[in-house]
Amino acid sequence: SPPVIVVHGGAAVCDCDRSEWRAGVEAAAHAGWSVLETPGGTALDAVQAAVQAMEANPVFNAGLGSCLTSEARVEMDAVIMNGADLSAGAVAGVTTVKSAVGLARSVMEKTDHVLLIGQGAEKFGEKIGIPVIHNDELVTERRKEQLARLRTFHNATNADFNMKMQGHDTVGAVALDSKGNVASATSTGGITGKMPGRVGDSPIVGSGAYADNAVGAASTTGHGESVLKVTLARQALWRMEAGKTPKEAAKAVLDDMMAKVQGRGGIIIVGKDGTIGFDCSTGDMAWAHCSESKGLQSGTTCPLSDK
Amino acid sequence: SPPVIVVHGGAAVCDCDRSEWRAGVEAAAHAGWSVLETPGGTALDAVQAAVQAMEANPVFNAGLGSCLTSEARVEMDAVIMNGADLSAGAVAGVTTVKSAVGLARSVMEKTDHVLLIGQGAEKFGEKIGIPVIHNDELVTERRKEQLARLRTFHNATNADFNMKMQGHDTVGAVALDSKGNVASATSTGGITGKMPGRVGDSPIVGSGAYADNAVGAASTTGHGESVLKVTLARQALWRMEAGKTPKEAAKAVLDDMMAKVQGRGGIIIVGKDGTIGFDCSTGDMAWAHCSESKGLQSGTTCPLSDK
Repeated sequence: SPPVIVVHGGAAVCDCDRSEWRAGVEAAAHAGWSVLETPGGTALDAVQAAVQAMEANPVFNAGLGSCLTSEARVEMDAVIMNGADLSAGAVAGVTTVKSAVGLARSVMEKTDHVLLIGQGAEKFGEKIGIPVIHNDELVTERRKEQLARLRTFHNATNADFNMKMQGHDTVGAVALDSKGNVASATSTGGITGKMPGRVGDSPIVGSGAYADNAVGAASTTGHGESVLKVTLARQALWRMEAGKTPKEAAKAVLDDMMAKVQGRGGIIIVGKDGTIGFDCSTGDMAWAHCSESKGLQSGTTCPLSDK
Repeated sequence: SPPVIVVHGGAAVCDCDRSEWRAGVEAAAHAGWSVLETPGGTALDAVQAAVQAMEANPVFNAGLGSCLTSEARVEMDAVIMNGADLSAGAVAGVTTVKSAVGLARSVMEKTDHVLLIGQGAEKFGEKIGIPVIHNDELVTERRKEQLARLRTFHNATNADFNMKMQGHDTVGAVALDSKGNVASATSTGGITGKMPGRVGDSPIVGSGAYADNAVGAASTTGHGESVLKVTLARQALWRMEAGKTPKEAAKAVLDDMMAKVQGRGGIIIVGKDGTIGFDCSTGDMAWAHCSESKGLQSGTTCPLSDK
């Protein structure tokens, strides 16, 4: 099948500048596509390039411009998974690197482990030569303001606030390359005002992302605790194994998450045949996809018909 | 359906004292059963009691007597999940509490989050009054010796060593109570010689454990990286949704893990109707189950016929 990449810049209720949100996912899809159209370019490199483009863009809640914890620090989570052999790497609670997904890739390729957290992950990164940065370099004025606004909503629970009042602009990408390999990656700063040490779905294989050449690849976003409880990414692939299209699977798993745990979110999927599907239950999701046949397409709302 | 509890004390190649391993799972099953036979006793309390019995027993790789990191420290992971509403709590990389599963239960009930890691989890525990202990209090001579032996095997990778040479004596429990609620819990010290910050499957919803009243509950053990890659616990419940018995589902998912990622492990399952199933692909697994009709049964090998 011909190569394709799909990216998301989070599922949210957009109170944001839609033009910069959309431009950001377009740039990310382009970065991934540039890898795929290079001879020998792999799905794994493509999803990493796409996600790193968004980590470096302060518009998104990943890398630079991540949401802040209750202590006003950035703690990042990311995962990357290779559908060719189910190999995966992930980090959680890292505070001193520019690219969490880059560190996750190194965990996958340079350790016997899948998931490294906190200082253990940071020390590993330092040891293999990934530059150490100060946490302040990741903190933006916009996120400080969001945290300040949250603190005035002291009567609302974090969960309600995060569900209803702001975005979950986690980023992610899925891709299929010319050799039939799929991959997925997801990166996030979590949710504003989270407890230090809180980890959501994003770095969790099966929840934040999943990839299996036999089926396809998925990356998710949304209320992390809800996504975790229903293993959203893996569930989508199961539904495809059971015969659903990526589009049908996307809608089905988001409906299931709403029914079972009253959680909202979004998902992007690529099937092993290059068919894509994406959807959200939040109202808005920044998305973009790119392929030879369809070129670059993007938007900031989802195709759910019942919205 | 009448109540039932199933516990495991890890899947391994036993080079251990089988009698103390078996006595440990029997005591844990008894602790869980004591909860279930009390009027109003819940599956959630039962799995916690069973796992805490094993965390307190130095025979098992959880709590006191956990496997040591490459820096000779204990870093513990645990999860607990309530099938009634898919609520879940988990901790990873905690070093200063006696019971990781107890702290996970508090994350579930006293925060808006599912997973807390490292110092964030520890500070939360301290804040709600859980006693802080020194890491040394969790370290046993036996685990120091295992780490020393590992260090002499410097030509073997951690993965090979851990797959072939020693146990994964993670602990777990699943239960069904008289009201039809299921729950599961899993707790571990990980693997000997792991990198600081390494987290396996045990605290991960969908990999280390899953519980859903609509289907049943599962707890897993084995090579954590492999279990993560195939979301073993959630996969087992999916196969039951598709019509398999717990016993068939246990065998099917362990076969799948071997085929896809060449990983070994074990799983215990209880269906919503009280049917149980368990199996392992490691050769040995300490297990025990208890119900009114069958009483207490236990063993240290698995029922796989092709072994």
